[in-house]
Amino acid sequence: PGMAGIRLCLGWSTIATMILTQLTNGVAIGARKGLQWPSDRLRTTYSSCHVLPWRLTRAAFKNFVSYASRKDKSKTPSLHRLPRLFVEKNLSIGDYINFDSIQSNYLASVMRLKQGSYCLVFDGVNGEFQARIETADKRETTAVVERESRPPPVTPIGGPVLIFSPLKSKSRMQFLVEKATELGVGSLVPAKMRRTEVTKINVEKTRRHAVEAAEQCERLTVPIIHDMQDLSDILADWPPECPLFCCIERTTNEGLADEMLAHRDPTSKLSASFGLMVGPEGGYHDEERDTLMNHPAVISVSLGENILRAETAAIAGLSVMRMCGGVGDRKDGGG
Amino acid sequence: PGMAGIRLCLGWSTIATMILTQLTNGVAIGARKGLQWPSDRLRTTYSSCHVLPWRLTRAAFKNFVSYASRKDKSKTPSLHRLPRLFVEKNLSIGDYINFDSIQSNYLASVMRLKQGSYCLVFDGVNGEFQARIETADKRETTAVVERESRPPPVTPIGGPVLIFSPLKSKSRMQFLVEKATELGVGSLVPAKMRRTEVTKINVEKTRRHAVEAAEQCERLTVPIIHDMQDLSDILADWPPECPLFCCIERTTNEGLADEMLAHRDPTSKLSASFGLMVGPEGGYHDEERDTLMNHPAVISVSLGENILRAETAAIAGLSVMRMCGGVGDRKDGGG
Repeated sequence: PGMAGIRLCLGWSTIATMILTQLTNGVAIGARKGLQWPSDRLRTTYSSCHVLPWRLTRAAFKNFVSYASRKDKSKTPSLHRLPRLFVEKNLSIGDYINFDSIQSNYLASVMRLKQGSYCLVFDGVNGEFQARIETADKRETTAVVERESRPPPVTPIGGPVLIFSPLKSKSRMQFLVEKATELGVGSLVPAKMRRTEVTKINVEKTRRHAVEAAEQCERLTVPIIHDMQDLSDILADWPPECPLFCCIERTTNEGLADEMLAHRDPTSKLSASFGLMVGPEGGYHDEERDTLMNHPAVISVSLGENILRAETAAIAGLSVMRMCGGVGDRKDGGG
Repeated sequence: PGMAGIRLCLGWSTIATMILTQLTNGVAIGARKGLQWPSDRLRTTYSSCHVLPWRLTRAAFKNFVSYASRKDKSKTPSLHRLPRLFVEKNLSIGDYINFDSIQSNYLASVMRLKQGSYCLVFDGVNGEFQARIETADKRETTAVVERESRPPPVTPIGGPVLIFSPLKSKSRMQFLVEKATELGVGSLVPAKMRRTEVTKINVEKTRRHAVEAAEQCERLTVPIIHDMQDLSDILADWPPECPLFCCIERTTNEGLADEMLAHRDPTSKLSASFGLMVGPEGGYHDEERDTLMNHPAVISVSLGENILRAETAAIAGLSVMRMCGGVGDRKDGGG
């Protein structure tokens, strides 16, 4: 009986510790989500937990707190945290939107929006709008466009053109598209170069990745995704008056930043259009290098002395163009 | 019998087409790898293929060509394509190296180096050396350091310090470490901020990712990986004379590029040390923001108007610092 008593004591103290731990977790999560303690909701949960400790798992608590904070959000919409979706039709105030099944599922099931909740929508042309959910259903959610939340961008698509050799690794390719979109690229032109090892790209899928990144980073536009073209065709069509910065490895060119600054024209930011080209993973072929060097629009630049991977070169180049050239910054969708 | 004859003809023409296709593939691959046609090796294969068409699969041909070109490489080593490994001991000419089991497997099994082949080794301090394989074994490969291939970097580790809040997603975190290393970061300081959702990081694993990136991008140094520290401790220890650029979202600060250019001192590149700080995925807490704004070393900068993900902000910031500030470029390991 003595042993049983001790066992019983341990059992109770364990349960007490569990309650305390879960409670602390819950409060910590609540605090991080911006909830005040003591709040009515937490107090209610606390009392019911007291009598039903076995229901107070950490996951349940997390769910509750995240649900509660989400509910609060939908009542007083903070624009920065509203779900934000790209819609494939021209938007204006008063329009009805029928979200497709993926978007409906996201809004109704994942984000648990109800009738009367708000979300943000943009169409890539007319700026961004706040829309009120009319019917919330995981198969077909509808909303009505209530008011403009951000005006349209100054120029339709202002960021630089990125010409690149598609990468073999799908994850690196997806990453490149995501980062280029965040950094304000205007269009993506996959080029077939001599050492390109990819024979075709999935334009639809690439565009979907770009749309997701645009939704997430609050861009007002979605970059244009071109189908794969031969490098020679791209160069033949390139307007000679638009500077095309080519990152060529193992050269002693000027750095991209200095070249960008030399070409920055503060008086007419909007008129200039820039391009950035990065080579394939195996580097340019000698003939390609010669062709590039002799093209009137090409400005050969260096990205520093380490050898960068193809996707790093593209991202680093776009970062510098964004911040040194006034391209993809003020004049882009983000502006 | 007529049908059988036709079937036989089709069968032979199919085999002939197959031979031709495989041969074309092989030659194309050979050409890409820099082999000349007709070369002795390809001619030999061609003759043996002629009598044994079933052995001429594309994979076999590829293997052969890649093996042949690798063999060529080891005879006349082109430094850019040699396997390149980081070694955890101080190197000088004449030293023997015992590679660990992972490196041995890579050299002997993956890269198929034999006795007498060359590889490149660096220790992060004394530059880069060419080493000749003495024994090639997938469990224990040894080599002897023959000659210096690149001199030691001017300063031991010159790149900027990156202070960042570790990311929840492992793939994004690995990506951040890889890209930061390529872009010449000097040290990585994971910071515990108010909205950091990660409680600890695996320093060993993070360092391994950095080593792999350094091997791949031809850096001469490996960034220092610190253990996670509280933001307040990091700020308390930060020397007030070193500019610490903080990317704070939704502010109207000057762009990072302009601030970097304002702080660039062409006469004493080597004396200045810079830091870059990016906030957690949920953004800085208001109190943190105030603390940062009041710190003497902090220069609050903007990365443009789109909201960048935490890892994009870090990579974009490092790219700009690399190219606008002369940091992590000439004075870094790559230089």
